[in-house]
Amino acid sequence: MNPNCTQKLQCYFYQLSWAAFLELEVYKQKMSLWPSNIHLQDYSEPNESWSPEMRQLYDQYIALCEVRTDGGEVKTGPWQKLPSYNRTLKHGIVAAQRPKTIDPRARLFTRNVEEKGAAFEYVVFMNDQERRCVCVFQSGHLLEGPPGYVHAGAVATMFSTVTTTLSMLFGRVLTANLNLNFRSPVPLGSVSLIHSAVDKVEGRKIFVTCRMTSIDESKLYTDATALFLSGKLGHVFGTKSV
Amino acid sequence: MNPNCTQKLQCYFYQLSWAAFLELEVYKQKMSLWPSNIHLQDYSEPNESWSPEMRQLYDQYIALCEVRTDGGEVKTGPWQKLPSYNRTLKHGIVAAQRPKTIDPRARLFTRNVEEKGAAFEYVVFMNDQERRCVCVFQSGHLLEGPPGYVHAGAVATMFSTVTTTLSMLFGRVLTANLNLNFRSPVPLGSVSLIHSAVDKVEGRKIFVTCRMTSIDESKLYTDATALFLSGKLGHVFGTKSV
Repeated sequence: MNPNCTQKLQCYFYQLSWAAFLELEVYKQKMSLWPSNIHLQDYSEPNESWSPEMRQLYDQYIALCEVRTDGGEVKTGPWQKLPSYNRTLKHGIVAAQRPKTIDPRARLFTRNVEEKGAAFEYVVFMNDQERRCVCVFQSGHLLEGPPGYVHAGAVATMFSTVTTTLSMLFGRVLTANLNLNFRSPVPLGSVSLIHSAVDKVEGRKIFVTCRMTSIDESKLYTDATALFLSGKLGHVFGTKSV
Repeated sequence: MNPNCTQKLQCYFYQLSWAAFLELEVYKQKMSLWPSNIHLQDYSEPNESWSPEMRQLYDQYIALCEVRTDGGEVKTGPWQKLPSYNRTLKHGIVAAQRPKTIDPRARLFTRNVEEKGAAFEYVVFMNDQERRCVCVFQSGHLLEGPPGYVHAGAVATMFSTVTTTLSMLFGRVLTANLNLNFRSPVPLGSVSLIHSAVDKVEGRKIFVTCRMTSIDESKLYTDATALFLSGKLGHVFGTKSV
């Protein structure tokens, strides 16, 4: 596997290749073209809305991101925490080139509410060696479906987010299928775990499995399979460069 | 089919039976227990954020909601526009009984943004005779996934909303499965049509199909199947009364 996978994944929400990221750095540093209204806040950092359970799980996985060898040396662990922003860096480049064609108000769907704890609070940890990831998710009061429970669409949104993040181990991808089995409703305001793993890869097709459970994993809320297509997707999005 | 289906459907986002709705009316009128912070604004009414295409489609289906007979009499047409609120009336009753257990800030996921046009703008028209419905949907800038396109989770959310609305022709339901095929990304800010139909009913199982297309229906964005379970669901939601 490409050793730059983790770095590439850290750019996931930018929807950028690593080369394009460096290109953007040139824009930012030398040309001052970075739109001033875009702040690169990492929304997956702990905040005061997080419940003790959420914080405990975060700390548990953070502890796995670094390992100390017998010699006392600190090394990168099997897990990596991925940052999460509220829009794509792509806008940075495109907006500089075509400022009138991009809506500067656009925000990533899962990070479109500024109020902490009100909507999606989540953090994704990646284990690229084992081609799997885990997401710690706390639902806010704005995600309601049935009274007191999370909307099935909000559950689907988290599955889409987590499985897409994982499949981006293989570069740019497009969601082709998402098949969700809702086993039990998710209480609004609760914390849950979302585990996802790459099942198999066949040519451009990446098959992923995913399940959402209670934090002790005793209760299965939803499970799903997802299919992604990797490779050049410019023809799909109407651009030549990506 | 129960002739009260349309009335019941008008209560869809309340997640209430018609009887419970009347019960709530008693609360409101006689006991003044209706929480003052809940305003029954119908979010599916036209507003200034709607594009001309959105408004044209709305007018087109509204015209089918009433028919004029040869004698000049105005009668209910084959289609009915469903209202859409930003929380469930159930809270009205439950909050009065158990004010400390319900979060008064809870909002329906698809109606949780007050800014008009920023997120989900949609209206659902139901044809209960033909057991199908159509939704006119305009995506706002807060629903972004890939730059310039709607997040797959936001698309899934609209499919969940529309198929659940349709399946509620059979009473209270629970989503069991949602299987989405993403054929082409949906441009952010565009208007699309979502058609849904009941495929078959087997006991408690309701099988529904759904597709999202461009407004001229020439481009298929996503299609899906959904499975719902109808009947008593109190054991699922942990309540005896529903």
